[in-house]
Order: sequence, then structure tokens, then C-alpha cells
Amino acid sequence: MHYQKIIEEIHTELKKSSPEGKVADYIPELSKVDGNKFGVSLITCGGEIFKIGESDEKFSIQSISKVFALSMAFSVLGEKIWERVGVEPSGSSFNSIVQLEYEKGKPRNPFINAGALVVCDMLFSKRSDPKSEFLGFVRKLSGSGKINYNLKVAESEREHGYKNAALINMMKSYNNIVNPVERVLELYYLFCSIEMTCTELARSFLPFADLKNEFNFSGFVLTKSQIKRINALMLCCGLYDESGEFAFEAGLPGKSGVGGGITAIHPNQFSVAVWSPLINEKGNSVKGMKFLEKLTTMTEKSIF
Amino acid sequence: MHYQKIIEEIHTELKKSSPEGKVADYIPELSKVDGNKFGVSLITCGGEIFKIGESDEKFSIQSISKVFALSMAFSVLGEKIWERVGVEPSGSSFNSIVQLEYEKGKPRNPFINAGALVVCDMLFSKRSDPKSEFLGFVRKLSGSGKINYNLKVAESEREHGYKNAALINMMKSYNNIVNPVERVLELYYLFCSIEMTCTELARSFLPFADLKNEFNFSGFVLTKSQIKRINALMLCCGLYDESGEFAFEAGLPGKSGVGGGITAIHPNQFSVAVWSPLINEKGNSVKGMKFLEKLTTMTEKSIF
Amino acid sequence: MHYQKIIEEIHTELKKSSPEGKVADYIPELSKVDGNKFGVSLITCGGEIFKIGESDEKFSIQSISKVFALSMAFSVLGEKIWERVGVEPSGSSFNSIVQLEYEKGKPRNPFINAGALVVCDMLFSKRSDPKSEFLGFVRKLSGSGKINYNLKVAESEREHGYKNAALINMMKSYNNIVNPVERVLELYYLFCSIEMTCTELARSFLPFADLKNEFNFSGFVLTKSQIKRINALMLCCGLYDESGEFAFEAGLPGKSGVGGGITAIHPNQFSVAVWSPLINEKGNSVKGMKFLEKLTTMTEKSIF
Amino acid sequence: MHYQKIIEEIHTELKKSSPEGKVADYIPELSKVDGNKFGVSLITCGGEIFKIGESDEKFSIQSISKVFALSMAFSVLGEKIWERVGVEPSGSSFNSIVQLEYEKGKPRNPFINAGALVVCDMLFSKRSDPKSEFLGFVRKLSGSGKINYNLKVAESEREHGYKNAALINMMKSYNNIVNPVERVLELYYLFCSIEMTCTELARSFLPFADLKNEFNFSGFVLTKSQIKRINALMLCCGLYDESGEFAFEAGLPGKSGVGGGITAIHPNQFSVAVWSPLINEKGNSVKGMKFLEKLTTMTEKSIF
Repeated sequence: MHYQKIIEEIHTELKKSSPEGKVADYIPELSKVDGNKFGVSLITCGGEIFKIGESDEKFSIQSISKVFALSMAFSVLGEKIWERVGVEPSGSSFNSIVQLEYEKGKPRNPFINAGALVVCDMLFSKRSDPKSEFLGFVRKLSGSGKINYNLKVAESEREHGYKNAALINMMKSYNNIVNPVERVLELYYLFCSIEMTCTELARSFLPFADLKNEFNFSGFVLTKSQIKRINALMLCCGLYDESGEFAFEAGLPGKSGVGGGITAIHPNQFSVAVWSPLINEKGNSVKGMKFLEKLTTMTEKSIF
Repeated sequence: MHYQKIIEEIHTELKKSSPEGKVADYIPELSKVDGNKFGVSLITCGGEIFKIGESDEKFSIQSISKVFALSMAFSVLGEKIWERVGVEPSGSSFNSIVQLEYEKGKPRNPFINAGALVVCDMLFSKRSDPKSEFLGFVRKLSGSGKINYNLKVAESEREHGYKNAALINMMKSYNNIVNPVERVLELYYLFCSIEMTCTELARSFLPFADLKNEFNFSGFVLTKSQIKRINALMLCCGLYDESGEFAFEAGLPGKSGVGGGITAIHPNQFSVAVWSPLINEKGNSVKGMKFLEKLTTMTEKSIF
Repeated sequence: MHYQKIIEEIHTELKKSSPEGKVADYIPELSKVDGNKFGVSLITCGGEIFKIGESDEKFSIQSISKVFALSMAFSVLGEKIWERVGVEPSGSSFNSIVQLEYEKGKPRNPFINAGALVVCDMLFSKRSDPKSEFLGFVRKLSGSGKINYNLKVAESEREHGYKNAALINMMKSYNNIVNPVERVLELYYLFCSIEMTCTELARSFLPFADLKNEFNFSGFVLTKSQIKRINALMLCCGLYDESGEFAFEAGLPGKSGVGGGITAIHPNQFSVAVWSPLINEKGNSVKGMKFLEKLTTMTEKSIF
Repeated sequence: MHYQKIIEEIHTELKKSSPEGKVADYIPELSKVDGNKFGVSLITCGGEIFKIGESDEKFSIQSISKVFALSMAFSVLGEKIWERVGVEPSGSSFNSIVQLEYEKGKPRNPFINAGALVVCDMLFSKRSDPKSEFLGFVRKLSGSGKINYNLKVAESEREHGYKNAALINMMKSYNNIVNPVERVLELYYLFCSIEMTCTELARSFLPFADLKNEFNFSGFVLTKSQIKRINALMLCCGLYDESGEFAFEAGLPGKSGVGGGITAIHPNQFSVAVWSPLINEKGNSVKGMKFLEKLTTMTEKSIF
């Protein structure tokens, strides 16, 4: 079946279903979003684009930005990053901070907050201007110059981010944060505040699906092997405490954000971004997860 | 490059490398195994077999049997099994038992001991003679009638299995074990005691790689979707606390046992079993893991 | 004010207060008890006895027996017992089993279940007939030959005791249980099943308050220093997760049981036993705790 | 035996014993202290003073100040403080932060760092100038106007205090910290930085031993019952993870600091302060603990 027909069919079906979950409400900026938004963009490795709904409306990508930050750090520092952050799934979030204590301040993987904070710390150490470089990298990846930080969101997150402050101070006490915690947090929240559309997101993740072309964006280069390993990390750790569930149901490497976005890829086939702001208590878009499960069912394309 | 050439090359290289890890020594029966054994069998979906080393020598498959038990239970009970066991990676083992307390006796997934015990409890409830049915199922899967339990190993494990006794009693206190703990433990240890060769193992896992043929062995049927989901579970949870590491390095669904075996599959390509009894402290065969990493590098066939 | 007047006044006041808590219901034998029972016996070091309510009715002393078992083991093995069990409060119960893992199978103190199981294991190793010796010891302490085990209660507890089975197997896996787990559990439940009256209990604890006389009962001898240390343990660890609360409010060394009994002592002054079967979710008698708080307020006799 | 003779005898014996432990070295200011210092002051409720060694040399009292802060807050807010901080021992420190998560940001007691931070937050809310009021209170208690903060120590602690920053942010995320974390931390470190002599400390704690006189210092009043309860807290929670050990061995309410000081009281008898900067890994003065154990043995005065 044709991709357009498939995404339309799923979109229509889910659009009708009764809404579950709720919009992220821990900061005012995110809570204002209309919960009925529902956009999808799918781009094949061949370059075809398929869209439905609010696919070209900007939203806060939040944790999806962790994939971009990891890619930059992996490109800059190579294998050395694994000395300070692991590659194992984190189990459930309830013990995230005891895990940090038990493992002496080394976070389990770069997609939990603690791990992404360490990644930001690395970039802070190694780049003279990580803020603009990050933006430049994402703009190149997505092919769109109109991507920006939302400073108000970043500031609001920082003000409410006591749990992240607890995590970074805990890691600092184990010397796994090198730079001043305030500066690293600032960078972290800036990265999370980026706003993109589904289409821009799908395009940004296409290089992770398309292994035939070289990965080289504004000077950040990844080898084929490095891309595959980022994909493996997304599959095992990309959806917080539901990573296993998502691998089990959708079978695709993906990354979610509390803004309601999920981006996933099928190696050598396509990249897809969904946005529906109603999230469950694990922080994942309810309709986003369902959409991707149905997509792999109907296309018969999980990676397994 | 041809598979035979590849597995020979890797085998030769690793054979020369200095031995790391040690033979499982918590029961006498396992500790007697010669640490230098090193066998490999790879079978393609097309039916070609490639072997090297002690590929046709029996060894104790231990936890690899958890895949067979799960397959039987999934076939018999369907989606209902997920009410009693989860599909999320377990994080690190250090908190396995506190996780059980925190999540009211529901284990994170069917490949950690707690989860496999629940699976055994389900089979005990639903089948009149799970012992012989399990054996029949594995014999059919592998196409070999010469597969048997090692009662001495099973008994020895039971005698030393205080941690498993702790786990099952904890779950029983939360009513997630229905049958008498002693009977379920007996079944569990019997399943773990099965002895197979690399070739038999590779053949048994071929149906998980080969999605073109129907999965129906001695009456146990799995749909394509169910097989894919077992593969997803293997990828995220198959190698204990190193599942992420293995997904990251090898990128294949697999399952390991403390006997030194690891079986992995590449969907629609091949099934492969490696045996090298020297295991690391996480319980995984050191050379087995390295072999499979090199295999995906040289064949350029990870699933990502 | 005279003790009799004080205990009558408090008894009357609490008798009128609306009932809180509920009778222990995890085994049928305990759940049958009448929740309105409310007895008190106070015996001074001078030998005077004061009573009110159902002070001479038998009830299941449950965990109060841990003090007797510890006394026997302390007498027999001396300081060596602290190699296998600690003297620190256990924090909250939620992490009791992770604590065992973290501290390699050594329980925090002899008044949590894990610690009492280790004490039983020691007695099992050192005494030829711990069952009858324990009974003999308690009979001597209380001066009553009519104290007995309730085998039905012991058996019923054993049948439902999955959490204790989890704890003892966990400790066995760390080699901190020497004898067969089933035998140690049997002894443990027998000790818990003992039935005594308030008066018998108060008399049994008098030797812990009365430091002027030698402690020597059926051959079990404790020095003054050992008695003081058992009292210190009771103060810090005697009321499960409410030990701090009880020290804070009542300021007396004491020990509670889920049967609704609490025994406490004031060094050189008195021993007191209260029984009211309605317990809170921490396992302590609601009226029992209140009674003892009021007692120290009205007598102005906390140890601080 | 006369107190002077006793403290001299113990002092001489311990002075000769080989040094154990090491000076706190996490900040430069504390690490410079001479490990051989060893002072003792004991003041009876009758007003007699007994001294030996460096009893009139200033040192950093550190966590001993938590008793003063609690006393002020208890006086100002009364029973309301227990809504935000508990009275239970904390178990071992390894799970201090997971305990905070599990119990939704309410620390177990006011003598662990998390609890003392909440106490500071309360004082910050309720007093216009907590810094000078605290100093005034301690000066009154000790009868010495020459007590001061060491700003350099406070600042140095703040700079290295990542674990405390983690704790306070965690509690803030649960709304159990009302004021800005930086301000509360500043106050906390200031309180810890106070410098006193053994004699000043012993005198400051005398009102906790001497229940005959009214507790009223620079306007902060405590009832007899409140004092007793602070004593109970000290007994159960005053020496970090060794509180049980100390209650077991010495049997006195006390409070220690990483500067090597320990102050303890015997109700209606005496107050005693010991200073020996060599601390064990739990943060308690090795000789200080031994001194107090021997003191209760030789005086036969534990509270039990």
C-alpha cells in the first residue's frame, strides 16, 4: 500500500479515537499547546515526502534534541564519550538517581536526562560556541534555516528544573561534570527548547535511516558504524521507561519528547515524525506511539 | 565475503587472543567444562550451514532456554502473559529484587530470572505435562531427537539456587506465582539444564529469523508479529545487564546463557550460535560477544 | 500520682476513643481476635503489680519474642553475634531487601525479620533442642509454666510467609544462613506463635528493667552491660518503622508485635505490657502506642 | 570515682593508642587541622567543670550545629515542623537520596543533611535575620560572646557541596523547600561553620541535660517535653549511620560533626564534649566515640 494512503488511514482512525493523556503542564509555555494538534511527516530514503495534519507547524521538540546533541558529541569525541556515559537501558525512572549513586555518577545512557547533561558538559568543554554550533548543525540536518531556540521555554524550564539540578549536582559530586553546573544546565535547556515541524524533524532524522550517503553536516561527521550505534541506542533507550514497549510494539529506533513529538526511522527505508501533544505519564505521546505501531503493522516494516 | 571464510577468520583471530573471563563455577557440573572450547554454527534462511570449532559438541544452554519457554507460553496464552510480566529492559541487576518490590511482584521482562519463573508458572498452570512438552518443542524446533535435560545439572542448580528462591517467594507474596514455588523452581531448573550443540541451537533459532515460513512446532504456533516481538525482546533484554552493549556493538537480537552460549539472529538472513565457556562477570561469554560483534562488522549486517 | 490511678485514667480515656487500625488479617488465626480487647499490666522493680482490662488473657506475642530469642543467642554466643547481624535501625521497610543485597546478606538489627531469622539460625546451630529450651527460658523469665506455642498459628504463618522465605533465601545466598532454610523458618514461626498475657509479658521484661538482680534464667546469663545494650536496641529498633516515633513520643525501650502487644521498660523503675489488637499499617498497636506515650507524660518518666 | 580522674584515665589511655581514621579532607580548611588534638570537657548539672587536653581550643563544630538549628525551629514553629521532616532513623546513607524520592521529598529526620536543610528553610521563612539570631542563640546557650562563624569554611563548603545541592534540589522538586535553594544552602553552611571549644559545647548542651531549669535563651523557649524529644532524636539519629552503634555502646544522646567533635548528655547528670579530629568513614571521631563508650562504662551511667 502507498505510504500516503497508510498515514491518512491511521491518522483518520486515531483522530476519531477519544483523547487520552494530557498536555505537559510543568511549565506554562508547554501547557498552552492545543492538545488536538496531530501532524505526521514521513520521508523515504528516496526523497519522497508524505504528510498529514499539522505536519508543518512548529512545536517544542524537547528530548528529541538529545539525539542531535549526542551526534555532535560522538562526532567530536568519538569512543571517549562512553567513558562518561553508558549504553544500557535505564530500567525504570524511579531509581534514576539511586542508579547514579550506585554507579558513581555515570549515567546509564545519553537519552536519559542525566546522560544528556553529561553530553552537554562534553560539548561545553570542547566547542567554543556550542549554542550556535548546535543550531547550525540542526539547520543543516533539517535543511531549514528557520529553526530557532525558544528562549522563553528554555528559561521557564530552567526555573522549574529542580530534578535536573539534583541530577547534575549529584554527577558533579562524582566529578562527572567538569564545567559549572549552571552553564551546563543553561545549554541543556536551550537544546531542549528548539522548535521544529514534523517535516523538519523527519528530514533531520533521514541521515540516520539513509546509510548510503555520507553523514557530514556543518563539519560534524559520523561513520556508518556510529550511525548504526545511535540507532541501536534509540531502539533500546529512546522512549524513556517505555523503550521496551515501543521496541516490542513498533520495532523501530525512535526518540520522543514531552512536547508530544516522536521521530523514528526504518534503516534504508524512511524517517517519520509524529506530533500529538497529549502525553501519558511516562512522557510519551499517546497517539504518537499508536501511530507508529500501526505504521509498522500496516507497512509490515519493523526492523525485526 | 563468504560466511565460511568470515567465521573462520574471526574464529582464528579470537582463538589466538589471550583468554578472558572464567567458566561458571557456582555449581560443580558447569565448572568442569573446558574453557578452551570454542564452536560456531551459522545457518542461513536459505538453509546453508557454516561451522567452525566445537560446533557439534553438547553444552548446557542455560538461560537460552528462556526463549523457548517464552515462545511456548506466548503461543498458549497470547497477550495475556503481559499482565504478569513486562517487556522493559531491567536496568542493572543490582536492583532486581527491589524492582520486584517496587512494581508489586511483576518482573520487568521474561528474560531475567524472575520473569522466566513467571513464564514457568504459567506453563505449569496451562499444560498437563510441561516437562515433556518443552522437550518435544525444542526437539522439533532443532530437528534433533537427541536433545535432553541433564538432571544432575538441574538438581545441582536447585540446591544452590537461593537467589532464585528469594525471587520466586517475593513474587509469590505478591500473588504473581500461582503454583507451589518448589514445583515451579523444579521446572525452571529443568529447562535451564537442557544440553544442545551450536548447530542444534542455530537451527532452533532459525524460525525466529526466517519469517517466510509458518512457525508451528509440535503444536505451538506463533504469528509473524509475535516472532518479531520476541526478537525485539531479545534485542533489548537478551544479554542480562549487557543487552544495551550488545545491541550497540552487534546490533542483533540474541540470548546468552552462563554456559557460555550465545544465539543471535539476523531477520531474513541467518541464525548463529557461538559457544565459548569463559564468561565475564555479567554472565556473558567474552569470546561469544566479540565473535558476534566482528560478524556484524564483517558482514555489514546489523539490523540498524 | 499512683500507677494504678494513672493506668486506669489512660485506659478509660483510650477505651472511649474511636477505634483506629485493624486486626492483623494475613492469617485466619490472628484475624479472629476481638479488636476491643485492651489490657495493661505494669510491674515495678519493687515487685508491685498494677493491672487494668484484659491483662490476664493470652494473646499471640509475635515479634515480641524476638527479644527473648536475641537474649538467648547473646547469652550463648556473646559478641560474636554482631558479626552476622547489625545494631543499626533499618530505615524504612520498603528497602529491607535491597539493604540485604547492598550489605551482602547482613541484616541491620535483630528485631527486623531478617535479623531475627539469623538469630534463629544461630540458636539452631548451637543448641540441641532450641524449641524446648526457648519455651523453658520464657517460662522461667515470666515465672509461669503455662506458656506454650500455638502450633496452628505457627503453621499458618509458615504457609503464608513468602516474604520471610524471600529474605532467608537471600541471606542464604550470601552464606549468612547456615542451616536448612525450612528448619530455621520453622523455628522462627514457632517462636512467634507463643501466647502470653500482659502480666506474663511484663514479668518477663522486668529483668531488663531491674538491673540490681542477676540475669540468669534456665542457664541463660546476661551481664548488666548486655542488658543495657538490648535496651538500647529496643529503643532504636523495637517498633519497626516507627521506632523513632516511639522513642520520640514515649522515650522508652520497647518491642511490639502484630498481635497488638507492646512491652516497654523504664530502667530501674518498671516493666509494662499493653495489648490492643488494632494495629496501624506499620504493624504497631494504635492504642498500645498511645497508652505508653500518655504513661510517660503522666509519670514524667521517659529515659531522657 | 571522681569525673576528673575518669576522664584523665581514659584520655591517657586513648592518647597512647595508635591513631585511626583521618582528618576530614574534602575542604582545605578542615584538612589543615592537627590530627593529634584531643580535648574533653564535662560539665555536671551541678555546674562543676572537668577538662583535659585541648578542651579550650576552637574547632569547627559542623553537624553539631544541627541540634541548635532544630532547637530554634522547634521553639518557633512547634509541632508543625514534623509535617516537613520526620523523626525516624535514616538507615544507611547509601539510600538517602532514593529515600527522598520514595518519601516525596520529606527527609527522615532533622539530623541528616536533607533534614537540616529543611530546618534552615523553615528558619529562613520565619525569622528576619536568621544568621545573627542563630549566633545570638548559641552565644547565649554557651555563655560565651566569642563564638563566630568562619566565613572561609562556609564558603569552601558551599563550593564543594554538590551532594547537598543535589539533596536540596530534589526536595525543592517536591515543594519541601520554600525559599531559593542558594539562600538556604548559604544559611546551612554558615551554621555548620561555627567554631567552638569543648567547654563551650558542653555548656551549650547542658540545658538539654539539666531539666530542672527553664530552657529560654535569647527568646527561644523549649518545654521539658520538647527537650526530651530532641534528646530522643539525638540518641536514635545523632551519629549518622552509627547512631545505633553509639546507642548500643555508649547509650547516651549525642551529636557528632566531621570536624571531630561529639557532644553527648546524660539527663540530669552531665553534658560532655570531646574533640579528636581523626574521623572514620562514617564521619565520626574515632577517639571521640571510644571516649564516650569508656566514660559510660566507668561511670556506669548510660541511660538504660
